[in-house]
Amino acid sequence: MVRANLCEEVSMAGVSPGSFAQQLPTPSPFSFSVASTRWSSRPPIHLSGLYLRFLALVLSFVSALSLANPPKSKGQGGSSFDKCPELMYCFVVSIVAFVYSAFQLFKGVCDISYRGIVISDKVSDYLSFILDQMVAYLLTSSSSVGILAIQQAERNSPLWKAAIISVSMSFAIFVVVATCALFSGYKLCKRISW
Amino acid sequence: MVRANLCEEVSMAGVSPGSFAQQLPTPSPFSFSVASTRWSSRPPIHLSGLYLRFLALVLSFVSALSLANPPKSKGQGGSSFDKCPELMYCFVVSIVAFVYSAFQLFKGVCDISYRGIVISDKVSDYLSFILDQMVAYLLTSSSSVGILAIQQAERNSPLWKAAIISVSMSFAIFVVVATCALFSGYKLCKRISW
Repeated sequence: MVRANLCEEVSMAGVSPGSFAQQLPTPSPFSFSVASTRWSSRPPIHLSGLYLRFLALVLSFVSALSLANPPKSKGQGGSSFDKCPELMYCFVVSIVAFVYSAFQLFKGVCDISYRGIVISDKVSDYLSFILDQMVAYLLTSSSSVGILAIQQAERNSPLWKAAIISVSMSFAIFVVVATCALFSGYKLCKRISW
Repeated sequence: MVRANLCEEVSMAGVSPGSFAQQLPTPSPFSFSVASTRWSSRPPIHLSGLYLRFLALVLSFVSALSLANPPKSKGQGGSSFDKCPELMYCFVVSIVAFVYSAFQLFKGVCDISYRGIVISDKVSDYLSFILDQMVAYLLTSSSSVGILAIQQAERNSPLWKAAIISVSMSFAIFVVVATCALFSGYKLCKRISW
């Protein structure tokens, strides 16, 4: 449809449509042009991907925030998580997941507004797949380490509560990012196969 | 080629090849029959998969063995790893990886000898993909936890050495299983796409 629209415009401008069509790259099954901006014309997999990225963004923000500002109780000052290297690792991984989700969300929105302005479709598919896998593995690792930190922390201390919130969030982000990794793997396979 | 070979055999036996070919299911691009037992006719991806499974089997055996029998030094008795729950977790995950690799290797060898006797191709592709992913995530988790156990263990103690060997092996198995997961993901995508 993209090619057909472009060809019509080109033929109206007096250029041979055949020669132009040969220069066009094969459109990705997951990309769409500015011409088709109706919601119904968008592939549902693309929109589900955006919702998942947004969810990961919110969850990683909550995870990082809970560690940076542990809830205060009984007049205690919030314990700084940097005394515990395990929680420092969880914090860094949450930040990585946050930055990555923000980038993917930005790219997804840009893809809807103007196609291919951020990064080309091919590079984007490879990059998304590799980074999704890496972030999912990092989150598994940080959740496991965080569980040990919960066991070591003093029970009912602010740090203990913060660690529990952060680890639960990390696990939830892991599930979301692993689902995104499945989608991006499927997209990449479609690109390789055809 | 599989179907062609079968049809030749059938027509030699006096049965109409057309009617038989209609009953045959579409062959998986990764499967091959007993008729084509030359090594050159096997898809290289299948053989690489077998080598990787064998490598994972050996590595997980070494990983589990190093924890079950930590090296003795200076007349000390080997410390039992079950005092340290982190190493117990690493041990259990190594055993899981060992059993899973053994199953995959057995299935791969059976596929070469007699096709489809263990498990159907479709179920096998789905199962391999899901289990590869799960084992890879488990190994990431156990490696991370193992690194903390190394930090906590007494330096140069038998347990410390055993933990270092086990964690290195776990990381190596993770790399191997993650590669297998890529292969099985690609196989599954091919199955879904066509």
